[in-house]
Amino acid sequence: MDEATDGGRPGTPRLKLRPQILHGDEIAMGPGKAALLDAIARTGSISAAGRLLGMSYRRTWLLVDAMNRCWAEPLVATTTGGARGGGARVTPFGQAVRADYAAWEARLAAAGEETATLLARLRPAPLPPAH
Amino acid sequence: MDEATDGGRPGTPRLKLRPQILHGDEIAMGPGKAALLDAIARTGSISAAGRLLGMSYRRTWLLVDAMNRCWAEPLVATTTGGARGGGARVTPFGQAVRADYAAWEARLAAAGEETATLLARLRPAPLPPAH
Repeated sequence: MDEATDGGRPGTPRLKLRPQILHGDEIAMGPGKAALLDAIARTGSISAAGRLLGMSYRRTWLLVDAMNRCWAEPLVATTTGGARGGGARVTPFGQAVRADYAAWEARLAAAGEETATLLARLRPAPLPPAH
Repeated sequence: MDEATDGGRPGTPRLKLRPQILHGDEIAMGPGKAALLDAIARTGSISAAGRLLGMSYRRTWLLVDAMNRCWAEPLVATTTGGARGGGARVTPFGQAVRADYAAWEARLAAAGEETATLLARLRPAPLPPAH
């Protein structure tokens, strides 16, 4: 949902959402963690997933750890004890959480399809600042 | 929609959204600007609205200016030329934009009512960090 930075034609207004699930002091799921799950599923490695997303290994690991502490079961399992460069996979439970989050994203996107009236009230492009 | 900081019972997961309409390099509407419109409607003054929201006058004025540059008509009209302390009101056009944004927020909130399955997968509370 957080595709605002993808650009799009200048002058085309964009809806931006950042749907997060907060739990205690943690972000249990959000766009960044969902992207990380996808990258781990794709690369089979926490460190490779972090590189793919341009994150430090430490930050990547902290995101995985936060997810695994929030949910009833781990979303990511490491196959070699979590050592740097070790293998990792998204568990079936993690896949289910990811799918439920994707379903929420899809419903949110559908809710945006009725904003045509609102968006039609915009100028073709913003006026420049006067100051 | 951005009510995560309202607290709620510890252990109760919260859905957080920050719905924004981006237009060119501007945020045409979002939770902060919507709250500002509400505060201007309530106080009849840009400076009083900023104080109510704990924002500097400069920041408050910049948000009003950005809104007024994005939409086809001004959302906020100043009754004394915009001088500090002068009166301000939300125009009928601004009220219409605010109402359309509220309708979007309501649809987004409704989309969150189907996250029960997802939220049921959380622990009662996050485990503490191990490190």
